[in-house]
Amino acid sequence: MMSEIARYLDENLPRFRSELDDFLRIPSVSAKAEHDPDTRRAADWFADRLRDAGLDAEVMETAGHPVVLGEWREAGPDSPTVLVYGHYDVQPPEPLDEWTSPPFEPTERDGRIYARGAADDKGQLYMHVKALETLRESTGTLPVNVIVLAEGEEEIGSPNLVPFVEKHRERLDCDLVVISDTGMFAEGLPSLLFSLRGLAYFEIHVKGARSDLHSGEYGGAVENPGNALAKIVASLHDNDGRIDIDGFYDDVLDWDEETRRGIAALPFDDEAYRRELGVDELAGERGYGTLERLWIRPTCDVNGLLCGYTGEGAKTVLPNRAMAKVSFRLVPSQSPERVEELLAAHVRRVAPAGVEVRVKALHGGRPWRANIDGPAFEAAGEALEEAFGTKPVAMGGGGSIPIVVEFEERLGAPALLVGFSLPGCNLHAPDEWLSVENFEKGIDALVRLYPKLRRLSE
Amino acid sequence: MMSEIARYLDENLPRFRSELDDFLRIPSVSAKAEHDPDTRRAADWFADRLRDAGLDAEVMETAGHPVVLGEWREAGPDSPTVLVYGHYDVQPPEPLDEWTSPPFEPTERDGRIYARGAADDKGQLYMHVKALETLRESTGTLPVNVIVLAEGEEEIGSPNLVPFVEKHRERLDCDLVVISDTGMFAEGLPSLLFSLRGLAYFEIHVKGARSDLHSGEYGGAVENPGNALAKIVASLHDNDGRIDIDGFYDDVLDWDEETRRGIAALPFDDEAYRRELGVDELAGERGYGTLERLWIRPTCDVNGLLCGYTGEGAKTVLPNRAMAKVSFRLVPSQSPERVEELLAAHVRRVAPAGVEVRVKALHGGRPWRANIDGPAFEAAGEALEEAFGTKPVAMGGGGSIPIVVEFEERLGAPALLVGFSLPGCNLHAPDEWLSVENFEKGIDALVRLYPKLRRLSE
Repeated sequence: MMSEIARYLDENLPRFRSELDDFLRIPSVSAKAEHDPDTRRAADWFADRLRDAGLDAEVMETAGHPVVLGEWREAGPDSPTVLVYGHYDVQPPEPLDEWTSPPFEPTERDGRIYARGAADDKGQLYMHVKALETLRESTGTLPVNVIVLAEGEEEIGSPNLVPFVEKHRERLDCDLVVISDTGMFAEGLPSLLFSLRGLAYFEIHVKGARSDLHSGEYGGAVENPGNALAKIVASLHDNDGRIDIDGFYDDVLDWDEETRRGIAALPFDDEAYRRELGVDELAGERGYGTLERLWIRPTCDVNGLLCGYTGEGAKTVLPNRAMAKVSFRLVPSQSPERVEELLAAHVRRVAPAGVEVRVKALHGGRPWRANIDGPAFEAAGEALEEAFGTKPVAMGGGGSIPIVVEFEERLGAPALLVGFSLPGCNLHAPDEWLSVENFEKGIDALVRLYPKLRRLSE
Repeated sequence: MMSEIARYLDENLPRFRSELDDFLRIPSVSAKAEHDPDTRRAADWFADRLRDAGLDAEVMETAGHPVVLGEWREAGPDSPTVLVYGHYDVQPPEPLDEWTSPPFEPTERDGRIYARGAADDKGQLYMHVKALETLRESTGTLPVNVIVLAEGEEEIGSPNLVPFVEKHRERLDCDLVVISDTGMFAEGLPSLLFSLRGLAYFEIHVKGARSDLHSGEYGGAVENPGNALAKIVASLHDNDGRIDIDGFYDDVLDWDEETRRGIAALPFDDEAYRRELGVDELAGERGYGTLERLWIRPTCDVNGLLCGYTGEGAKTVLPNRAMAKVSFRLVPSQSPERVEELLAAHVRRVAPAGVEVRVKALHGGRPWRANIDGPAFEAAGEALEEAFGTKPVAMGGGGSIPIVVEFEERLGAPALLVGFSLPGCNLHAPDEWLSVENFEKGIDALVRLYPKLRRLSE
């Protein structure tokens, strides 16, 4: 059987590549209304390709850009159902003059496909479609029931996705959510994500006197909101780089030794990383390695500060307002709601007398942790090793993909994050690229993965 | 003799008022090139009025607006010489729609002359000219040699005044500098300034990684310049509101008990002041009253903060730069140069690893302390008591007038600051006003002051 599949793959990879180029040529920039017809065209094009692969496909309306839903349920009710999530929209390509070749004219150079969306996420999403086509064409069937859900608003924060999932919950019922929208730890090193950090984003507002005052006439009589804000922000960390908010670490998972050993074994060079970032020293919470600080430890970062006069020269103003944007990256089992409560209490406690302080929650997303002992993680590990010739590594994600937890909770199914982009692939930047080798080996890995997912029903 | 003077004053006050109105009608806004002809016209007009009063007068060019110099030296080389400093330029009047009557149409309401420049400084400067005229017309001479120096750039920072003083140092040689460009502590309470605070204004720049980073992908690995800046700014104060920089208080004068008792005896209501400022509590250095904190204690205030993303919403940026504008008000005998050294050393010490920090000095001015035991202070005290019927109070100034120390050092003469504006007179704001009573009593006080200044040569 495998030889039949291998032959089909071998014969059709050039076509897969040329189809991907067609997909990449559509400038489906979800953030820009002028591209709405393109975004719609990408949805229609993608639905057609799902049909070509043998799935039923529907372009379904939302309050924004449509969702494309592909379905194949002929494996029957006793077989597991796998939902593949991805997105057909892309980031704006600007600044255009920093692209070596135009963003919507896919160009191969040095074994890389350069185009906006090559890695994020059209290339990776399309690998699933081609893996499914390969299986169906070469075996006449699929090993599991499949739902493909491709949204067109991921790059603008997925405002309509949770409502869509809620509305169609029964139809989307599944045993596993597979997402290929992340990367590998290094070239040649297939990777599975064991976690993502969550996010809790706030504004802290400090208000002092009725109006701005003259710093000579009034300095010394009233609390300065800028000084007060600095005091509040400084109080968020202790001298060991730990977050100094009462109760903050109560919900922080003390990660297992095996995971920490795995992280320590990864090929990572602090010194090269430091040089790349252009700093004289790395920093962060004492007692943890760099990758641990990035993946399995929470952080608190200032994202913005604004107070008083910030133009040229010396304006002697005693400002009456100051604002900080401060966000936390969260790890299991923290929640943005709990962090909001703790932060608000902390700020009330440390704020100096003579100013009013307000904490405003802007945005939140929960952290995610993979079930690395489950059958899906195991199946993916085998498939990646077969395709890439190397045992995959488990890695964490420092960023946040809030929809992962939403899928898991609303559909009652675990998520598997297996991605194929490489470090330095210029996500959201000019000259985004996807490795040709990873495109091909990735399809091979997915072709090997789906049959193994029959285990989900065992 | 006094009755002759009193009669002249009485008869001529209405004309003095109408001449002041003429002066106030000239929109000599030094900051605006479109008003350059008006500023020139004010200088010429003022020189003519000096001549009317019996002085020689010259409009002298500088690199900017001219200086008007009036001189009367007939008291002879054995008599003291008094230099009166003031300015004939005014602040811009904007916002115009917040004026009850137009800024350059002097209007009397409720015993107040409303106009831009009424208090700052045309009204007060003109009181000296009219006092000198009164003395000369009613006695045929002046009791001391007099130099009147009126500049046209005070409201834009006096950029050409020190060079002018340097260039004409011998001609400006004097025994006392009298300045009437400040106010009285309260209505009916004539006041003499015993001090002014100095200023040391800085920018603190913090630089982290080569570029802005994604707070999820990199948060936890590198120092955040916004957090680092907050830490640095917070470290500038201890929990008692004292400035926590090593050596900062070494040069701070421990003011004498008499001055502190005088301050404590002033009619000042913390609660009313607090309400006026709209704060729930006053604040500042522990152990000192509000007026002490404003006048005789140094401060450190944030004037501005800027870092990262400050627009609407949640941008997950880990910024690579942060900036604070921070200024200190200084008291005798601090110097901005020494404070710069101390601050730079402090910042180097407290800055966290992984960021570069730079302290940039923007502006400085030394504090000033009056010689309250000298003959000028004593003479002014008597003159004010005679004119106002009340013993004058000594008060401090929270703000900075750097030129005062420059005059004292370059001319080797002490300065006497005696002003007649009242609290709430809207300096630099719409509806600036001068009390008619203070204009009249002020001239009376100055008429009494000049003869007493003969003591300077005793």
